Amino acid sequence: MIENGYYTSEFHGDYDDISIGRLDLEEGGSIPDCQLAVTTWGELNEARDNAILITTWYSGTHQIWRDVYVGPDHALNPERYFVVAINQIGNGLSVAPHNADGPNANISMARFPKVRIGDDVVAQERLLREHFGIERLELVVGGSMGAQQTYEWAVRFPDKVRRAAPIAGTAQNTPHDYLFTKALCEQFWSDPGWNEGDYKSNEDVVDGLKRHSHIWAVMGFSTEFWKQEVWRALEFTSKEQFITDFLEPYFTVMDPNDLLTMAWKWQHGDVARNTGGDLAAALGRITAKTFVMPIDEDMFFPPRDCRAEQEMVPGSELRVIEDIGGHLGLFGIAPTYMPQVDQHLGELLATEAP
Amino acid sequence: MIENGYYTSEFHGDYDDISIGRLDLEEGGSIPDCQLAVTTWGELNEARDNAILITTWYSGTHQIWRDVYVGPDHALNPERYFVVAINQIGNGLSVAPHNADGPNANISMARFPKVRIGDDVVAQERLLREHFGIERLELVVGGSMGAQQTYEWAVRFPDKVRRAAPIAGTAQNTPHDYLFTKALCEQFWSDPGWNEGDYKSNEDVVDGLKRHSHIWAVMGFSTEFWKQEVWRALEFTSKEQFITDFLEPYFTVMDPNDLLTMAWKWQHGDVARNTGGDLAAALGRITAKTFVMPIDEDMFFPPRDCRAEQEMVPGSELRVIEDIGGHLGLFGIAPTYMPQVDQHLGELLATEAP
Repeated sequence: MIENGYYTSEFHGDYDDISIGRLDLEEGGSIPDCQLAVTTWGELNEARDNAILITTWYSGTHQIWRDVYVGPDHALNPERYFVVAINQIGNGLSVAPHNADGPNANISMARFPKVRIGDDVVAQERLLREHFGIERLELVVGGSMGAQQTYEWAVRFPDKVRRAAPIAGTAQNTPHDYLFTKALCEQFWSDPGWNEGDYKSNEDVVDGLKRHSHIWAVMGFSTEFWKQEVWRALEFTSKEQFITDFLEPYFTVMDPNDLLTMAWKWQHGDVARNTGGDLAAALGRITAKTFVMPIDEDMFFPPRDCRAEQEMVPGSELRVIEDIGGHLGLFGIAPTYMPQVDQHLGELLATEAP
Repeated sequence: MIENGYYTSEFHGDYDDISIGRLDLEEGGSIPDCQLAVTTWGELNEARDNAILITTWYSGTHQIWRDVYVGPDHALNPERYFVVAINQIGNGLSVAPHNADGPNANISMARFPKVRIGDDVVAQERLLREHFGIERLELVVGGSMGAQQTYEWAVRFPDKVRRAAPIAGTAQNTPHDYLFTKALCEQFWSDPGWNEGDYKSNEDVVDGLKRHSHIWAVMGFSTEFWKQEVWRALEFTSKEQFITDFLEPYFTVMDPNDLLTMAWKWQHGDVARNTGGDLAAALGRITAKTFVMPIDEDMFFPPRDCRAEQEMVPGSELRVIEDIGGHLGLFGIAPTYMPQVDQHLGELLATEAP
């Protein structure tokens, strides 16, 4: 393990480290002590049937959900629901290459095993059941890789998911996304400080982390985001300053091995693994009332790809979010973003569900 | 200079090296002996008024135009027109960092000066006038950076261009394209073999050239190109093989300094330099009958950006090419591509023009 001050309560507010014990992994191997970082808002009712699960995206944590998505003015309302955000394995708050220590010392850094979306969902289900006594969720919601987990939940545990809202993500990763993610990974691997994953500090790989952020600049937003100079409204003076003062620092504090663990997981996400490769059969299993919510200007989870999957989910609806922020519209930058999300999630939560 | 067998007649067929002498550059400095590689098809008539100029794109040469676009079955018909392709400065057939020698020895490799789209167009105009006696062009046509040159011709020399067909490119480079191009450049700069541009062989930078090709894989085609596995029709067995056996070899033979010369030129392309920054004024100058021809699935020259410019060109028409090949549809991979191009260029050439 190595020290990295970013992955602390100082930067992420309060959260609990909850161990679910040993987690055996789909790709083989195991995490001896699977610690998951969990944040909750609101109260679990006596029937334990008012829980909402939030899953996290690549590079993300519960923090953005707390700051942007959850609150009494939002559909994800802690006055009504018990909202639980579980940080994904590898994100650096939950168990991850950079923080693997103690019983996990043998899987630290470059030795961290391959983790799949299914592993996360199995771990989350166990945590919710064993720690909170939750057997059924009012809603599972997540963006991007969080959408992958949301789909996996709905396919793997249909009886436990009443409603599902995958935002800006797919159930089966696309080949284009695979290549995009590979281009991101290569920025780390090509950094002379990478040292086959056994660097001493994420600072050793800062050049790779910066180039990684520059590819996000190209793919993460939309052509129109840059053309309309949206960064002006965010009080930056130039696109260059937006990159050096926002996008680079966002990523350079992070750990490359952690990001790579998530990247591999993203690349290999596929609910059809539950049904021998048959995507229609997998999505056909879903009984949750599902709103599929792509962002119209998303360059790598375009509505076309999300619609194709939505059409395989029984009783589902396509709810397109309009945002020239593109994929990173997920950050809630545009004042028009959250009202759309709240509208859709509010309607979904108000809909009868099994 | 360094040897690079790719930039020879062996790989590019016959072409002529024509010197226009010293070229003073917009950014300062000059090219002492500006050699341009030129290929022609057909015969210049006595009135010297049947000439068509083809301009080249980033990484491209006249070769793709010869193999895909020009011929008796195409709108660019050498039985009717005198078709001239002039390779852009820096492309490696024309004067470029890797081949600068003799009178150009002082500007070889990393010392090559910054070249602008306007420099190319000034050089091309001089060459056509002094070498062929051509004062007026029936058509200027080019794709991508060739579209930048096409627009520059029409704005700078309105009396010399009867018709213009910018394909999959813009008159003023967009901020998104600027960032995309920067991400491409960084793949070279970050290669330990780069050596500040003074490598001994392009092979020293092969890792950077490969990563550069991987970013093209993400941005150059479309999400749908990969989803529909178009590479199967091209007789590849996997997307990985398409990349290792087509896309990587396409780029790894090239010279990084040459690519960077073109990349900088692409990034800074802007016809509004002719009118004090006023894009509408620049495009308003155009008298050529102009067909603006974006490709519908282009991820970095989207039709939206091309349409915005087209609307500023008096009497112009928007002709959108449908191709899930995206930007690299320009390679003419899809059997449906050239019929559309020929249809539009044929109509344009049949249209009355000033």
